[in-house]
Amino acid sequence: MLLSQNEETIVALATPGGIGAISVIRVSGPESFRAIDNIFSGKQKLVNSTTHTIHYGKIYSVDKELVDDVLISIFRSPNSYTGEDSVEISTHGSPYIVQRIIEIILSQNVRLADPGEFTKRAFLNGRIDLAQAEAVADVINSNTEASLRGARNQLDGLLSQKVDSLREKLINTSSLIELELDFSEEDLEFLSYEEVEKRIKEIIQELDFLISSYSFGRVLKDGVNVALVGEPNVGKSSLLNYLLKEARAIVSEIPGTTRDIIREELVIDGILFRLYDTAGLRFTEDLIEKEGVFRSKEAVRNADLVLFMNDVISGFSENLWIELKSITDPERILKVVNKIDLRNPQKDLFDVGISAKTGEGIELLFQALKTKALGTKTYSEKSAVVSNIRHFNALENAKENLTTALSSINQKLSGEFVSVDLRNAESALGEIIGKVTSEDILNNIFSKFCIGK
Amino acid sequence: MLLSQNEETIVALATPGGIGAISVIRVSGPESFRAIDNIFSGKQKLVNSTTHTIHYGKIYSVDKELVDDVLISIFRSPNSYTGEDSVEISTHGSPYIVQRIIEIILSQNVRLADPGEFTKRAFLNGRIDLAQAEAVADVINSNTEASLRGARNQLDGLLSQKVDSLREKLINTSSLIELELDFSEEDLEFLSYEEVEKRIKEIIQELDFLISSYSFGRVLKDGVNVALVGEPNVGKSSLLNYLLKEARAIVSEIPGTTRDIIREELVIDGILFRLYDTAGLRFTEDLIEKEGVFRSKEAVRNADLVLFMNDVISGFSENLWIELKSITDPERILKVVNKIDLRNPQKDLFDVGISAKTGEGIELLFQALKTKALGTKTYSEKSAVVSNIRHFNALENAKENLTTALSSINQKLSGEFVSVDLRNAESALGEIIGKVTSEDILNNIFSKFCIGK
Repeated sequence: MLLSQNEETIVALATPGGIGAISVIRVSGPESFRAIDNIFSGKQKLVNSTTHTIHYGKIYSVDKELVDDVLISIFRSPNSYTGEDSVEISTHGSPYIVQRIIEIILSQNVRLADPGEFTKRAFLNGRIDLAQAEAVADVINSNTEASLRGARNQLDGLLSQKVDSLREKLINTSSLIELELDFSEEDLEFLSYEEVEKRIKEIIQELDFLISSYSFGRVLKDGVNVALVGEPNVGKSSLLNYLLKEARAIVSEIPGTTRDIIREELVIDGILFRLYDTAGLRFTEDLIEKEGVFRSKEAVRNADLVLFMNDVISGFSENLWIELKSITDPERILKVVNKIDLRNPQKDLFDVGISAKTGEGIELLFQALKTKALGTKTYSEKSAVVSNIRHFNALENAKENLTTALSSINQKLSGEFVSVDLRNAESALGEIIGKVTSEDILNNIFSKFCIGK
Repeated sequence: MLLSQNEETIVALATPGGIGAISVIRVSGPESFRAIDNIFSGKQKLVNSTTHTIHYGKIYSVDKELVDDVLISIFRSPNSYTGEDSVEISTHGSPYIVQRIIEIILSQNVRLADPGEFTKRAFLNGRIDLAQAEAVADVINSNTEASLRGARNQLDGLLSQKVDSLREKLINTSSLIELELDFSEEDLEFLSYEEVEKRIKEIIQELDFLISSYSFGRVLKDGVNVALVGEPNVGKSSLLNYLLKEARAIVSEIPGTTRDIIREELVIDGILFRLYDTAGLRFTEDLIEKEGVFRSKEAVRNADLVLFMNDVISGFSENLWIELKSITDPERILKVVNKIDLRNPQKDLFDVGISAKTGEGIELLFQALKTKALGTKTYSEKSAVVSNIRHFNALENAKENLTTALSSINQKLSGEFVSVDLRNAESALGEIIGKVTSEDILNNIFSKFCIGK
């Protein structure tokens, strides 16, 4: 029987808390069947039951009081989520019943699971690698088509496969270098310095592609924060109202946390955009307004994009443009002109023209926002995309080591130096999928999971 | 194949809403397997799978995009909750994924389930009777040991069996009377009027026991509302604070809905007591206080029990006692004296003495509350107990018809009259377990369920 590093049997509620038709309690570990058999009365003992079968019966308290009639699903090691013997108990969806049953299970030498412990065991038992384990949390937290697709790709192993193939290349190259060192007295050459250099450059190129996918991946996963900025009366509120009426686009209206910032959520082609309306950026003596200006500047600074709104009547606001450029990257600013139903705009000054009154140009605005957010680089649905800062850092680390290796080659240093750099790079990549990992890193990753996963 | 009256296939989320490790979507109806096979890809077709087995696979959207990997449980008619072919889909616990999958299932000629429709189908397909179906909702809403036990007894059929045996007796008796009427020209006597009278009286006695269990059953199910009343400074707040510190007893602290009424929840021997602190009952000119007095009187009027608090220093408050008696039944008032650590109370004036400071007498107070709430009649754990107003009304109705039957017998009316009364009584009892029922009654019962049950 395949056992987890941790041979304790664990229990937790797996479904969301609250009242519902049913709730599911999950038990995993070597003593799962024995523990539940002690409190369960069905047609047959669970310990004798086939994997992937469902059993009706009753759960009794230690003093033999009937608590609930339940359905129990049996998963035998290694064919379970964790890889261990596991049981899922489907109870009536009462928080009181769930609490009672978990209490009774805890009396059977079973302990409460830590956050993410089921998934951690799936990783420790080799059911999934670390990047896949992290994707489980992303799948659960996905709230748009794009975030789900990104998380699914990672869970399905797209990133892991890519990272693993780069690791293989590094291991292969460093092995040849090390072999050459072993035979150095015989002056054999397994691999020329030119060949090593070429290989490393290829790998760096692939790393660069992954690293540059991070901003794209983050947009898919977390969505895009857009600050809506403009002079008074250019139509910022009109635009928000127009979007609000377009129920198709609006996900929800979330009350602003401050007096002046209203947040709307908008899904464009599956990608989440959060719109923050700002009060104004101009210098003022009024204390309350001063506070509003401070907050608006913060919103612009924190935004991924700035929707800089003007209108055809007043034209392009040079003052606000100068102010905006001073607090954020001009590349992040989308220059929009409103009220094009009244007059033709001066086209060369703006990225896109709209009418918040008639809706003209709104689709173009959506596409412009999307292009601004995702960049021009295209990723196919089957591309490995990085959306996790831990993975991004590991990739940067690997690239750094490979750059050092290149400079060692240029300086004609001994193969030993190059080999160490390649090994370090390989180890950095190994951290992503959990080939090399510390208990601290694991605890940090899984502590962010919910209990029961 | 056993089909529901309604041959449509239905779907709903069965677990509580929100983010969790897993969520479960339930599908039931003749087209369950076909509908899910269309969107599911596993090792084998569900339509060919054995009942009570679990299948891993992937759910795809209509445009073939992977949505989630899931576990699917198969339940074949009649061995399912509803009695129909059913499927339970265990997904990652993301509200977005759940919504997507339900949308996809809805495209397969499946419709969203009405509240309680799965349980309604279980009833219509003869899996459970109506009283048991109603108990399902009570089990889910149970929040204490007592409420769970009461609901469980009803779900396990204790009340149904009792009611059914009374129905059988009535049917047997009325059949004999009717047989006699058929043979009236031959002047045969199958049953003497004395025997009929005796039987009816026995049944009335059993009905009386059930009817009187209602106040007990309601206490088990809904808990007891206790109004805490007393002159200023007798120690009402001290008692609440003492109970608050006794974490063992306190379930939760719920902020009052009004300025003056604080509510605490307390579980004594598995029974829920809700304590409402009242501001005062006395006449006042102050407008705000007037409002408080009005609310306090309302609280006393609505309370099941009144905890009338005095202290050993001021003694028994005659004024408040007179006022209390004018707005509620004296039988509902528990006379308590506080501060017995300071002086011995005048025992004959009070039901129980306590010290909210030292905790002396608090256990006695708990037992007194429990006795006051449950009455002195004892019900064993295996007694059929009524906790549902619909059942209570049906029992009253049955009793009324039997009383009419008795008076017909006394008046020596024709057996036809007696027989009709017995049939009416039998029909009233039949309503409890759903032998006789209208679509309106069913809709009313199941509309109170949550969706997915």
